[in-house]
Amino acid sequence: MRICRFDEDRLGVVIGDNVHDVTAAQEEIRKHARYDMMGDAVIAALPEWRGRIEEMARKAPGKPISQVKLLPPVARFSKVMAAPTNYSDHIAEMAARQGTPADAHRGIQAAGIFLKANSSVIGMSETIPLRFPDRLNEHELEIVMIIGKKGTNISMENALDHVAGYCMGLDMTVRGKEDRSFRKSIDGYSPIGPWMVTADEIPDPDNLDIELTVNGVTKQKSNTKYLIYNCRKLIEFASSHYTLHPGDLYFTGTPAGVSPVKPGDWVTASSPKIGELKIQATAHK
Amino acid sequence: MRICRFDEDRLGVVIGDNVHDVTAAQEEIRKHARYDMMGDAVIAALPEWRGRIEEMARKAPGKPISQVKLLPPVARFSKVMAAPTNYSDHIAEMAARQGTPADAHRGIQAAGIFLKANSSVIGMSETIPLRFPDRLNEHELEIVMIIGKKGTNISMENALDHVAGYCMGLDMTVRGKEDRSFRKSIDGYSPIGPWMVTADEIPDPDNLDIELTVNGVTKQKSNTKYLIYNCRKLIEFASSHYTLHPGDLYFTGTPAGVSPVKPGDWVTASSPKIGELKIQATAHK
Repeated sequence: MRICRFDEDRLGVVIGDNVHDVTAAQEEIRKHARYDMMGDAVIAALPEWRGRIEEMARKAPGKPISQVKLLPPVARFSKVMAAPTNYSDHIAEMAARQGTPADAHRGIQAAGIFLKANSSVIGMSETIPLRFPDRLNEHELEIVMIIGKKGTNISMENALDHVAGYCMGLDMTVRGKEDRSFRKSIDGYSPIGPWMVTADEIPDPDNLDIELTVNGVTKQKSNTKYLIYNCRKLIEFASSHYTLHPGDLYFTGTPAGVSPVKPGDWVTASSPKIGELKIQATAHK
Repeated sequence: MRICRFDEDRLGVVIGDNVHDVTAAQEEIRKHARYDMMGDAVIAALPEWRGRIEEMARKAPGKPISQVKLLPPVARFSKVMAAPTNYSDHIAEMAARQGTPADAHRGIQAAGIFLKANSSVIGMSETIPLRFPDRLNEHELEIVMIIGKKGTNISMENALDHVAGYCMGLDMTVRGKEDRSFRKSIDGYSPIGPWMVTADEIPDPDNLDIELTVNGVTKQKSNTKYLIYNCRKLIEFASSHYTLHPGDLYFTGTPAGVSPVKPGDWVTASSPKIGELKIQATAHK
């Protein structure tokens, strides 16, 4: 199932090229959620509500996707995690750029998982307002896991039980020496979408073709089978430090091919089983 | 005014040693808040509601603080920011430990602001479950700003208009080479409290005595006048990258004197105008 949020905080199911409005389910679920809940009530309720949501979608008239404003597929996540240096070819390209051997660059075990600010997340209907035009702003193509179930110290064996679904993501980055959680947390620097594809449609997240184009020219092209820490290991690693909550986002890392993004550029991140996140960069005002 | 959250998500005003229940105000405010709002509705509504909340508190019977369970003073923050290396004497002590000169350590401008996971925040009624007993776990005493008003690119001149209040905080840390946003985001590693003191009671946050004891022995003792980036500059710096939202937490940095914390230790962080955050460390189960 493809679940989206659209227009003014509405919930939809995407079937073909149409969105079917199931906002009534969202309203009912939220009505019973605690205000101080960590994470997103709709994502947490999906296992219980899925059948009803599918039925509602079948009965609701469809509206062309092209006519709606796509928002991030999750309304409220408690955190946005992201894996650094998780593809060998990206580690090598960054090492080459800095004139040091690739093995001088720390692997993910040593680097740890970093955080991106919740306030940096946007959906496909927005633009990426590039903030420091005099510095190097680059795209990083990623698969994003959306956590479905609360858990800590999760084993690799059970890890995928904690995933509600997947979407595309751009880990937009200003290069520099500051902490990753600062340079990568600028407003709009974490576009996700176009929607969430539920986990049942992607039994093996570690074998997904991924591609990114800038203005139609392919820049990054890889497959998640080249992840150094695969999706299960990423969940085990993060949850050895903190609790994952429903709706939390987890950027899995980027392959080689990162390149500059300038105002006016159209950046498209896609994977056949997920869809296409297409978004334009603009100048921050 | 001292505002606290207590027991099962209740709102209170602290007067002397008593908590006066004003949960009715919280319910009314939250009722009109959007589910997908970034940040905390109660904190955002404070300027408008303050008079009414004070009146409600005067009419509500008091209950001894010792009889309530203190929660983090904010229910929903969109992010937890934290300043690294923001006191010279702490930079010097860390440099000495690593056998390198202090000036080899990067200042805050170069290091940037890091994030702590929302899921790491706890109130005074909980314990700090230390997670990696074989590694060095240390306390870092800090003043925490609670953002009151949404803003981006905020100037130093206007910065304090964006602060709702202050509380004490512990930036608990596992030492190591991983990203700060990982090592400092373990569950329970961001205790805050005991309550929020509203900004009107602290016209100059850059002249606050702060002290931390472990089992009654003073370990850190300083004053926020030694901050390298003062509170106004910290807000300007962070908001040059991202939008601050009502309820966002901002740890301002720690002075010299950091030292190990072990299960069973009682850690107390205090400042005369704010109060005392006293919390026990335990072993993670």
